[in-house]
Amino acid sequence: MAVLILSKPISPDAFAQALRERGFRHPIHTAIADADPAQVRWLMAWRLKSGVVSRLPNLELLMCCAAGVEKLLEADDLPPELPIARVVDDVQALGMAQYVVHAVLDHLRLAATYRAQQAQRDWTRHSVPTAERTVLVMGMGAIGRRIAKALADLGFDVSGWSRSGQQVPGVRIHGGADGLRQALPRSQVLVCALPLTAETRGIVDRGVLSALPRGAFFVNIARGGHVVESDLVELLRSGHLGGAAIDVQQREPLPADDPLWTAPNLTLTPHVAGQLAPGAVVDQFLLEVARREAGLPPMNPVDPRRGY
Amino acid sequence: MAVLILSKPISPDAFAQALRERGFRHPIHTAIADADPAQVRWLMAWRLKSGVVSRLPNLELLMCCAAGVEKLLEADDLPPELPIARVVDDVQALGMAQYVVHAVLDHLRLAATYRAQQAQRDWTRHSVPTAERTVLVMGMGAIGRRIAKALADLGFDVSGWSRSGQQVPGVRIHGGADGLRQALPRSQVLVCALPLTAETRGIVDRGVLSALPRGAFFVNIARGGHVVESDLVELLRSGHLGGAAIDVQQREPLPADDPLWTAPNLTLTPHVAGQLAPGAVVDQFLLEVARREAGLPPMNPVDPRRGY
Repeated sequence: MAVLILSKPISPDAFAQALRERGFRHPIHTAIADADPAQVRWLMAWRLKSGVVSRLPNLELLMCCAAGVEKLLEADDLPPELPIARVVDDVQALGMAQYVVHAVLDHLRLAATYRAQQAQRDWTRHSVPTAERTVLVMGMGAIGRRIAKALADLGFDVSGWSRSGQQVPGVRIHGGADGLRQALPRSQVLVCALPLTAETRGIVDRGVLSALPRGAFFVNIARGGHVVESDLVELLRSGHLGGAAIDVQQREPLPADDPLWTAPNLTLTPHVAGQLAPGAVVDQFLLEVARREAGLPPMNPVDPRRGY
Repeated sequence: MAVLILSKPISPDAFAQALRERGFRHPIHTAIADADPAQVRWLMAWRLKSGVVSRLPNLELLMCCAAGVEKLLEADDLPPELPIARVVDDVQALGMAQYVVHAVLDHLRLAATYRAQQAQRDWTRHSVPTAERTVLVMGMGAIGRRIAKALADLGFDVSGWSRSGQQVPGVRIHGGADGLRQALPRSQVLVCALPLTAETRGIVDRGVLSALPRGAFFVNIARGGHVVESDLVELLRSGHLGGAAIDVQQREPLPADDPLWTAPNLTLTPHVAGQLAPGAVVDQFLLEVARREAGLPPMNPVDPRRGY
């Protein structure tokens, strides 16, 4: 009985060390060549190539080392009955919420204007409304709900959008394509917290961004693949969007020649909004292993057909 | 029966208009020369010179047009029995909380570093802890409590300090000089939300700032007079403080030759954290007038001996 960790580009060593620190007593391998495939019961991975899982005849659990599983599901040989789990971490969700709150306040409270004024020793005051700002959070999973709560706690008028339209306590929910069409023109801020699936890839395009009121602000803490980046740049350049903050990009690390770097009123960060501690991932892995031993389904299951 | 509005440097016209919009039927004067002093029952003011109140023999209520009353209390002829009220506005407190949350996240999440990197097309990631950051909020009035709640909602480990040490639900309170001495070395962030009184003037000095751990962050949304500004600049220059954000300064507007403009790692804004809408002030004035008519004491009374 052994665990195999194939977490690249995240280093597998930090997960291995966290497992040892917690007294994990089974062999830990960080390359398939080092393992006896028949002994591997558990696989921790992030980006999974086709053909790996097929070589592990006694695999009992596939654990994604992150919240987003789209790279894991690229493998085309996942057995339909294999339990798959992903990380749902409160601290990571809190980090995402902090990122969004900072980005939204930075924009709405004119922080860039005041930074520029400070450099000019200019003490001019500007009036901005504190409350009554409308925000739409796309994606009502654990992360989207935490973001919605953080913004509501700070006085924003928050709505949520999800494919299903399932109710969330304390959030006004819009569901489906019709719900999105109705909600966008009323939303001064749009936040993307969706899983990346076949349905959501490229969902934030010219149509969605144009439907926001003029001067709206867009924040993406999900995946670069949700956004048609050329549309985002164009709507920032035209001034229809008042600004945007994107923590994720289609190409990461972002090459120096990408037009995103110089789009006007765009804040760009290197995928740091919700950092996952290796210990948090390993704790959830151990919990999922224990549930498996007890014959229980994963606490945070992944449905490959749904894509999250 | 008339109201006199002496709110300068805030324009009295906005208050007069808000009063009229609410159907206020008594004469409104915005200069004492225009009023029959014997007719003035109510005085709205911010900065009050000595000798004004003595000329108003039938004054029943003095209403401060702001949360901070120190400029009002500079008048040396306030009759001890005159009811004095001040504005306690949830939206203003929320604005203060938004300002502090933004400033703290901007610092702790390395926003300035990422802005500089973006200008260099540099996608380097840095690891920062999301939670377990300690904050001490000095001042547990309506504003300090709102700030403490906003920071706690975002995962910070928040303590409060007040002169009295009176308990506040959900906040660990330190009281008095001993409590402050004990709390400072454990606080990575210090926020000043105190009223400005004889006791608190200059309270944030070299002794207080040096007692914070190296690299700590300081935020002031109260009054410039709370801070010994030369000490603040020196501790920023020495690197003992990792940064500061000050919305208020001793001299406002801040003259171009002030050393604060160029202190390292200092964010300076022109007293915009908690903006008060004229309508909010007038609503509280009308409520205080109604209470006075009903023989009730002010809802938000000011005690000139205490200073707030």
